Amino acid sequence: MAVVNVQLLLTGNELMVGDIVDSNSSLIAQELQSLGLNITRKVAVADEITHLTEEMAEMTRRADILIVNGGLGPTVDDLTADALAKLMNVELVQHPEALEHVTRWCKYRGFNLNKPNLKQTFLPKGCEVIPNSVGSAVGFRVIVNDCHVYCTPGVPVELKRMIRDEIKPNIAAYIPETQHYHVNRFQVFGIGESSLQKILDENCPDWPTDIEIGFRASMPLLELKLTTKTQAAAKYKCKWIKRLRQLLGDHIVAEIDKKPLSFPQHLQELLLKENAKITTAESCTGGLIASAITSVSGSSQVFDAGFVTYANSIKENILDVDHNVLIKDGAVSQQTVIEMAQGALKKSNAQYVIATSGIAGPGGGSEEKPVGMVWIAWGSQNQLQTVSLSLPGSRYYFQHYVTAICIDLVRRLLIKSDEKPRYVLDRALP
Amino acid sequence: MAVVNVQLLLTGNELMVGDIVDSNSSLIAQELQSLGLNITRKVAVADEITHLTEEMAEMTRRADILIVNGGLGPTVDDLTADALAKLMNVELVQHPEALEHVTRWCKYRGFNLNKPNLKQTFLPKGCEVIPNSVGSAVGFRVIVNDCHVYCTPGVPVELKRMIRDEIKPNIAAYIPETQHYHVNRFQVFGIGESSLQKILDENCPDWPTDIEIGFRASMPLLELKLTTKTQAAAKYKCKWIKRLRQLLGDHIVAEIDKKPLSFPQHLQELLLKENAKITTAESCTGGLIASAITSVSGSSQVFDAGFVTYANSIKENILDVDHNVLIKDGAVSQQTVIEMAQGALKKSNAQYVIATSGIAGPGGGSEEKPVGMVWIAWGSQNQLQTVSLSLPGSRYYFQHYVTAICIDLVRRLLIKSDEKPRYVLDRALP
Repeated sequence: MAVVNVQLLLTGNELMVGDIVDSNSSLIAQELQSLGLNITRKVAVADEITHLTEEMAEMTRRADILIVNGGLGPTVDDLTADALAKLMNVELVQHPEALEHVTRWCKYRGFNLNKPNLKQTFLPKGCEVIPNSVGSAVGFRVIVNDCHVYCTPGVPVELKRMIRDEIKPNIAAYIPETQHYHVNRFQVFGIGESSLQKILDENCPDWPTDIEIGFRASMPLLELKLTTKTQAAAKYKCKWIKRLRQLLGDHIVAEIDKKPLSFPQHLQELLLKENAKITTAESCTGGLIASAITSVSGSSQVFDAGFVTYANSIKENILDVDHNVLIKDGAVSQQTVIEMAQGALKKSNAQYVIATSGIAGPGGGSEEKPVGMVWIAWGSQNQLQTVSLSLPGSRYYFQHYVTAICIDLVRRLLIKSDEKPRYVLDRALP
Repeated sequence: MAVVNVQLLLTGNELMVGDIVDSNSSLIAQELQSLGLNITRKVAVADEITHLTEEMAEMTRRADILIVNGGLGPTVDDLTADALAKLMNVELVQHPEALEHVTRWCKYRGFNLNKPNLKQTFLPKGCEVIPNSVGSAVGFRVIVNDCHVYCTPGVPVELKRMIRDEIKPNIAAYIPETQHYHVNRFQVFGIGESSLQKILDENCPDWPTDIEIGFRASMPLLELKLTTKTQAAAKYKCKWIKRLRQLLGDHIVAEIDKKPLSFPQHLQELLLKENAKITTAESCTGGLIASAITSVSGSSQVFDAGFVTYANSIKENILDVDHNVLIKDGAVSQQTVIEMAQGALKKSNAQYVIATSGIAGPGGGSEEKPVGMVWIAWGSQNQLQTVSLSLPGSRYYFQHYVTAICIDLVRRLLIKSDEKPRYVLDRALP
């Protein structure tokens, strides 16, 4: 099988009226990509038996693998099994494995098996049942027109498990070359997709074509993915990964083996290692840094206090920022963020601090202090650093980017990095 | 034309590999819904000329209206115009309106018209150019196989404007009955979709079938949509809207006429009317309420200070919460949130306050104070109210739901509502 033609059929009225965004097809595409398989065509149709059957007929003729998503539920709108049975010209029959699954599932939830549930046990004669470890609807697999058809549930968490645990191993078994697919993943902060591509083009013009580079935005982090498809390429990949590490330096936040951590989770891990706490003194980010830190379970071990000092009078009264500094230098100034940081350290007894003051916009800018300008102070009592950056854009972008940069600056301090991050090189104000 | 068959063709490799989630088709579906048109079938294919042309051939034979999205850009991957020209068996010719548009656009951005940009001016002979008020790529319209084909840009903001300002009026002109479509929208907080449906089923069994009810989640708000398709129905709709207002009471945050406000924007408007400021004293929400308030431009007019008092020592030292209360009642208690609120009012000089203390989880719960329990205090110095709710779920869900409820409680206070919200009726702890 040279190029495997994988197609995707999505069913459901809710997909057609625009009330929900289809995230399932992206989930399926990502899972299959790790086998090196790309989806070549996607079709979505409403729940209507004739259209569904016609679409399946055409797609099974064109594709090697067809993933059908949705339509396995207990209501009359759920027509996937009917449509496939019609296409295969077989009956729907009750499958004992499906019955056992639904019975167990109902028992576990503490209610009686009813007629709609029973509907889910009737599947095309001769199909292979695919277990669902999370929900009531089992999936199933048939071969029609030489095409492997996998019918999957619409609920994302059920779909994800079924693809990962059941369908991928099944596909890998009959497309043996997929067994050599090998993926390395990196979390990167501070370099965008196009800059990263440029760095690689300029520094590694000899990058081997059989180490494929892929990107995925997982804001604020970027996920970089290196895929090899042969045993030979997997062997010499480590040399190129080494080169990549040299080029990106501490912009690599982590190499991912299992479930990736969020950016605040990385920070928390580093603080826990030092048994240290951090505090925040926020003006322009308005509490977003504190909320990022406390979004992580267990954050009380690394965080006691945060100060949102939006008004000058509050900077003065709560964090003891010098009145004259606020008058002379203004709220968005180096001395103000230093004093905010010192005040927060003193009031909280934390070892580390982040302080921000800037112009989030869209209003409030001036020629001297334009929208997008920010002063940041970070570090500890004995080692307080400051930087001023220009990050113009929407208010949302500014607040979230400043928050991520602050987390990154402390991360770099904690890993004792002496490298200048690109956002400082590119965006620092004089 | 009885039922209008509208189909959607999405192009682009990025849609197939799962790196982005397709939000454009939901955007198109929503816009067309206000004309009463539903998309019956969606197909997505990669950027490949033969597949694209074949797909267009089939879809134009089946549909009355075909919206093609993507593939209008300046690169070699952008093949929409080529594919349509091939299908129509006409040449690509330079369109003067397109040239004028791209020339103006480049001039505005301050760079020279280059060859890739010029490519965007070559469109199928005989097509009608559709203006793009935001980006470089114009859209275009042709009729093939009796199907009206609209080619639209992939960039969401460009797409949205083009659909709204150009394509919808164009469609309405040749499908005259769409002119009677009339939509009323409401922002609702504190009632979920299924509860809302149940309320209507129980209280309005006689709800007329020609006033269609639709929902759209726009977290934390729910958008409720009433659509009528005839002049007659539009006339008696106001009677039913009145009934709806009685049933939902102050759970209706706003009736939407133009761009809907976010929940913090609604709060800001109410505070501005009173020329009042609000402060926050947050434990379990960790700064999320402050960051919600300051996510709105102009928030410095209503917000000076926020306190994230995560540790007991900080509640005591910064907000003057009584040490004995923390020992005796604990951090998650009525007296603690009252004293947190009073402390924040005193330190900030604000007129209004929100204070939270709860168990966000997943760790930290006990039998007496389980995960999901929260105490909230809100109001002013003279009118401080408290409530304790049970909102178990993920940490993310808990923190965001508590934040939204706090905003809603202050909103209800500011509009002088004496109604008990459902989340209090359903979730209050004794």
